[in-house]
Amino acid sequence: MILSHMDNHLNRFFAALSDPTRRAVIERLAEGPATVSDLARPHDMALPSFLKHLRVLEEGGLIASEKKGRVRTVHIEAAPLAEAEDWLNRQRRTWEGRLDRLDALARRLDRGGD
Amino acid sequence: MILSHMDNHLNRFFAALSDPTRRAVIERLAEGPATVSDLARPHDMALPSFLKHLRVLEEGGLIASEKKGRVRTVHIEAAPLAEAEDWLNRQRRTWEGRLDRLDALARRLDRGGD
Repeated sequence: MILSHMDNHLNRFFAALSDPTRRAVIERLAEGPATVSDLARPHDMALPSFLKHLRVLEEGGLIASEKKGRVRTVHIEAAPLAEAEDWLNRQRRTWEGRLDRLDALARRLDRGGD
Repeated sequence: MILSHMDNHLNRFFAALSDPTRRAVIERLAEGPATVSDLARPHDMALPSFLKHLRVLEEGGLIASEKKGRVRTVHIEAAPLAEAEDWLNRQRRTWEGRLDRLDALARRLDRGGD
């Protein structure tokens, strides 16, 4: 199997979301950018552990950050979120399309049996 | 942080999707149920390795299977796919809602500056 760039991207994206702390960070950042200390505050965890979670999100392309003086501000990256949502959406539509076709077939068979 | 049942569910779900072989299986199953050997065929991999991928998908709640005689047939579980899609969708809408508000604010400030 050819491992495309897109595949690689989705691997790291979905792996990054497989943790509740990291999903909570994304939920917070969806409301707007935040500093690292604001992001860390609600999580009962040592700062180095928390920073490790941020690094996984950054490597997964879900967030980016900039530093101004001593304050690092983090923001969400919208494009990969949309890409993963599209992937799930395509699977659901394929699946629902199949169910619709089965349903139509069942109704045709039903009418044929009258 | 309280680790809810739903959290646990999404952890395993997203981890299951962080692999291209497993995503390919889901793409195939979105088109309809398939036997294990049909699913394995396009993948250049020993059967035990492939079965391990199916197990991860099953533990993540994405697929289920039934055995009839010697043939095991696998189907997709639609509900968790929809749940993960909803989660991503909520983040995107929160994010886009914020951009819309910023945009409206920028236009108001712009008019004020005329």
